Amino acid sequence: MRVGVLTGGGDCPGLNAVIRAIVRKGVQEYGYDFVGFRDGWRGPLEGDTVRLDIPAVRGILPRGGTILGSSRTNPLKTGNGIPRIRQTLAELDVTALITIGGEDTLGVAGRLADEHGVPCVGVPKTIDNDLSATDYTFGFDTAVSIATEAIDRLHTTAESHMRVLVVEVMGRHAGWIALHSGLAGGANAILIPEQRFDVDRVCDWVTSRFRASYAPIVVVAEGAMPEDGDMVLKDRSLDSFGHVRLSGVGEWLAKEIEKRTGNEARTTVLGHVQRGGTPSAFDRWLATRFGLHAIDCVRDADFGTMVALRGTDIVRVPIAEATARLKTVDPELYDEVGVFFG
Amino acid sequence: MRVGVLTGGGDCPGLNAVIRAIVRKGVQEYGYDFVGFRDGWRGPLEGDTVRLDIPAVRGILPRGGTILGSSRTNPLKTGNGIPRIRQTLAELDVTALITIGGEDTLGVAGRLADEHGVPCVGVPKTIDNDLSATDYTFGFDTAVSIATEAIDRLHTTAESHMRVLVVEVMGRHAGWIALHSGLAGGANAILIPEQRFDVDRVCDWVTSRFRASYAPIVVVAEGAMPEDGDMVLKDRSLDSFGHVRLSGVGEWLAKEIEKRTGNEARTTVLGHVQRGGTPSAFDRWLATRFGLHAIDCVRDADFGTMVALRGTDIVRVPIAEATARLKTVDPELYDEVGVFFG
Amino acid sequence: MRVGVLTGGGDCPGLNAVIRAIVRKGVQEYGYDFVGFRDGWRGPLEGDTVRLDIPAVRGILPRGGTILGSSRTNPLKTGNGIPRIRQTLAELDVTALITIGGEDTLGVAGRLADEHGVPCVGVPKTIDNDLSATDYTFGFDTAVSIATEAIDRLHTTAESHMRVLVVEVMGRHAGWIALHSGLAGGANAILIPEQRFDVDRVCDWVTSRFRASYAPIVVVAEGAMPEDGDMVLKDRSLDSFGHVRLSGVGEWLAKEIEKRTGNEARTTVLGHVQRGGTPSAFDRWLATRFGLHAIDCVRDADFGTMVALRGTDIVRVPIAEATARLKTVDPELYDEVGVFFG
Amino acid sequence: MRVGVLTGGGDCPGLNAVIRAIVRKGVQEYGYDFVGFRDGWRGPLEGDTVRLDIPAVRGILPRGGTILGSSRTNPLKTGNGIPRIRQTLAELDVTALITIGGEDTLGVAGRLADEHGVPCVGVPKTIDNDLSATDYTFGFDTAVSIATEAIDRLHTTAESHMRVLVVEVMGRHAGWIALHSGLAGGANAILIPEQRFDVDRVCDWVTSRFRASYAPIVVVAEGAMPEDGDMVLKDRSLDSFGHVRLSGVGEWLAKEIEKRTGNEARTTVLGHVQRGGTPSAFDRWLATRFGLHAIDCVRDADFGTMVALRGTDIVRVPIAEATARLKTVDPELYDEVGVFFG
Repeated sequence: MRVGVLTGGGDCPGLNAVIRAIVRKGVQEYGYDFVGFRDGWRGPLEGDTVRLDIPAVRGILPRGGTILGSSRTNPLKTGNGIPRIRQTLAELDVTALITIGGEDTLGVAGRLADEHGVPCVGVPKTIDNDLSATDYTFGFDTAVSIATEAIDRLHTTAESHMRVLVVEVMGRHAGWIALHSGLAGGANAILIPEQRFDVDRVCDWVTSRFRASYAPIVVVAEGAMPEDGDMVLKDRSLDSFGHVRLSGVGEWLAKEIEKRTGNEARTTVLGHVQRGGTPSAFDRWLATRFGLHAIDCVRDADFGTMVALRGTDIVRVPIAEATARLKTVDPELYDEVGVFFG
Repeated sequence: MRVGVLTGGGDCPGLNAVIRAIVRKGVQEYGYDFVGFRDGWRGPLEGDTVRLDIPAVRGILPRGGTILGSSRTNPLKTGNGIPRIRQTLAELDVTALITIGGEDTLGVAGRLADEHGVPCVGVPKTIDNDLSATDYTFGFDTAVSIATEAIDRLHTTAESHMRVLVVEVMGRHAGWIALHSGLAGGANAILIPEQRFDVDRVCDWVTSRFRASYAPIVVVAEGAMPEDGDMVLKDRSLDSFGHVRLSGVGEWLAKEIEKRTGNEARTTVLGHVQRGGTPSAFDRWLATRFGLHAIDCVRDADFGTMVALRGTDIVRVPIAEATARLKTVDPELYDEVGVFFG
Repeated sequence: MRVGVLTGGGDCPGLNAVIRAIVRKGVQEYGYDFVGFRDGWRGPLEGDTVRLDIPAVRGILPRGGTILGSSRTNPLKTGNGIPRIRQTLAELDVTALITIGGEDTLGVAGRLADEHGVPCVGVPKTIDNDLSATDYTFGFDTAVSIATEAIDRLHTTAESHMRVLVVEVMGRHAGWIALHSGLAGGANAILIPEQRFDVDRVCDWVTSRFRASYAPIVVVAEGAMPEDGDMVLKDRSLDSFGHVRLSGVGEWLAKEIEKRTGNEARTTVLGHVQRGGTPSAFDRWLATRFGLHAIDCVRDADFGTMVALRGTDIVRVPIAEATARLKTVDPELYDEVGVFFG
Repeated sequence: MRVGVLTGGGDCPGLNAVIRAIVRKGVQEYGYDFVGFRDGWRGPLEGDTVRLDIPAVRGILPRGGTILGSSRTNPLKTGNGIPRIRQTLAELDVTALITIGGEDTLGVAGRLADEHGVPCVGVPKTIDNDLSATDYTFGFDTAVSIATEAIDRLHTTAESHMRVLVVEVMGRHAGWIALHSGLAGGANAILIPEQRFDVDRVCDWVTSRFRASYAPIVVVAEGAMPEDGDMVLKDRSLDSFGHVRLSGVGEWLAKEIEKRTGNEARTTVLGHVQRGGTPSAFDRWLATRFGLHAIDCVRDADFGTMVALRGTDIVRVPIAEATARLKTVDPELYDEVGVFFG
């Protein structure tokens, strides 16, 4: 049996650990062959492959990124996409496909499996931790650790100069990284995309922190918006350079805090360092177990399913269900954490 | 209302995060007063207290250890222990007690609550992650991270000299740290207390790794035992110096591997570095949430209960149930990981 | 004898280690008293002091920032500055002043010592490592370590997506942090303030890296300028918000690279994380030795001098000489490193 | 021109950075060919080589260990060693040899160059930093950083349980790692091989630390000896298992402290983790510059010389001079640091 593997969407620490686990167990226990497809869906679309055997996965466990490369190519938006994929699989004699990716990548896998009979198994990947059906995704813990370490470092600068420091972290649609790293880093305010924030309230927290003779740290998710954000931030969205548009809110907020409180404020945008480098031990564990269970799904011919974490167990769920809705921060949990604001 | 807090047993990264969360929420939301008891049960036994208010918990979130101190004093084995504790609580007007500790500390809390009507709430703490009723305990992730980083480092030395490296990690009765760090560190064998190991089989893994031109790393929990361990290790147990006795298995195993395979082998005993220093982001998150929910138990007068993690939720369980049995590594999970041995 | 201590300018990991060493040796070996002045020169100007004895310096060795606070207040630009400082020192019976700071802070100390007979000893501090007369300053190694770790992380993202990553690091007038972290991080181009850069040449390096099937990392000091930088970057300098102006070059360069090579490019501005948090072992060693030698200068009544590192020795130099010129990157050294570009 | 490269002795973070720099500059600037010899002097003795070109050195900068392998084989103690090496070099048309190693490896290189006309260039390597003629060797900073981080972690455990923690670090003949990491980690006693220690004095320091309500950390180099060490430790030297013999002093000292002061004491032996893993930014910088200058020595036909660090410059010294004597800790420097004991 020959199994194809691809990784799609943004890179994430732990992708290589998944790939390694799939290949190690697939070859050693089940005697499978593997084909790596390069750059997500582009690989099967264009028949671009990479050797994928035990020597190819040696030493990759601690390495970030993906040895298969990644892209955002979407075969559903590509002329004749589905037939081309089926043809590639047929030509290469690939009878099962493991797709490691986020909402988009898995969405395609789900439709391929359900509507076109392509035997797909999914492994969830989102650094933002915003996929429902799984408690956590790998890469998230690494991102939170990096952001927390950065916040730890920023405290001393803030205290020494009695300045406000605004830290912008990843999270376009869900505030998980902001919530976890902000809590772990002892932030005095955490702003997430799920709830519009009131700048004056943030300024109150800032001021109250200074009154206690400490300097405030404000953690803001890149997708967080002030109450009138559509208006005040709209110019930025015209900017064609993706990164700048997203980093707008931190900088904007620092200026507003300066203006309204009279305190000096500085911004740090953590950016891509959050998603690179060696995965944390937690993420290596989770990613490896996802890989081991994904190849078991193939052995069981359990297609159209995705592996997921529930408590300490790896379970299987229908791909379609898993990608149906975004997992956002529950207002109750946000309130729970709110005791540390100000 | 005045609430007492104590920490018992071995120290663990995250204890201070629990204490801080209890005090911040207790003071700010519920208007409670706090009394810190020093050195676990010794505090209430001897009336030894420490001030515990918001200034006392500032800045402690990222700090390992416990500002309250700890000890293994057991009031059930101390003359007149229970009445003395009740008297201290009465004298200080303490009407609820939050005890943060492992099996021993919580065992006392459970009996105090159930048999003597002392209003106790428990927070689980064990670096070995071996308490049932909770998916994880804080400190465990930090320990696994430190051990994984050490294993990462040892790989390059092993490869450069083509030597076997035996890494002894914590875990007297349960192999969770060995299992997680061994998997995350890419170990070629993981030995845990739950299953006696066969030295010859370990030697086979070692030899097969060398055949693939790589040098093996063997991770062994301090409580792991060879099949005839009672005999071969028994001399060591006569040693009065606790630490040496426990570190015996790694050293013994390295010598056996040298003898049986002819390959050079070295041991590294990670020891106390695994339990010290700043908690990981995951542990700060978990410990903080445990603290927030523990003080909610007090508010709800829900005594005799312990907070626990289930998936991503914090739940309440009877203390007695939580300490009834050790949470050990499931043979199935150990088998799952075994694909990477050799 | 009573000795005053102050820290001026931007904060820097290691400041607390200097303070601790001064106080520990001053009290234990020489029996001195200490007075901490708050927020750099603002302290002696306004008579704002903080207790500075052995308990005050306990536990501060591993902590970033400064327990004395810092500011950029310049008494030479403050009405009646010198007489007010002399008066404060007289009133507090302070007969020697140790000033820990960069060019500005030490410039004032030098003039106070030389022209006004105020007994000052200097300790050099600049995270950019741009003070002549000393091989290294503390804080620099920490900043380089943090930047290198960030570059390590960015490699995997760059490779996974075959993108250019531009990393902007500190260094307004000297490129030491860029040079060291860029070399240590395996960057494919390093741009420093000392030499205007040619964007087309940078694009050549980028392109040649892609041809070898790897993705390029470009490290750029915040003060680096393209050949026609005065023109292309001038709008940014009108921005009143300091941080934005300085972070311009990385973002500008990424856009230019995209435009000229057609490759996707992203920017990461490391910002304040480089100067915060616990100092590296090297910086703790250097800072501590600076402190020990500074208090020896006081004992020897060797005023108007600054401690400095030469090889592995701590030496004394006249403050005036030390601040006379900026230590910039030698063109020969830059050429040496250039072998790794492209 | 064809240049041979070998690495001898214990592995050390930075070896790969040296190799990469040699090859990158040698190929790109001077058009040289390279041959890697495997496992130190065993390579040229047995004609065991490994391909060494630009693809072979890609990505190795951040990796610990050595891609060439290492050994302690000494051709001067091997039958017919010199002629065999000359023959190998002749057969492979290798006209210059760069040897990266410590006292032993360089001692051979020096004699080969001086007495047998074999064109050798040396690069100093010793994790203990005990080679004279160079201010620092690469690997040392990494080892000190790892040891310091471990000591940082141990403080919290020591405080929580009010125990003595003895940390044994590397250093058989010189106490540099103990001195630097002990100072940087805030140890309360540092014991080095250069000065026999008085156990009672150590106990005084321990006791005085407890009186100040803090728990002591004692850092001891593996080669440190009590005043009557030859007697009390002699049994251990009979042990055939190298590692155990060396780790004796920490464990012995902890027991003595327990016995004499009545305080609980624990030992942590850091062991091989100190020499593995990714090199620090400082070590990558130093190792790279050593490599760049070593290949320049070859170009200049400057054989029998070794590169060395003096201040911030890389200089050339005769190999023979460099290995003539051990660089040990100066008693004055040890006294300087002694202010923090107790």
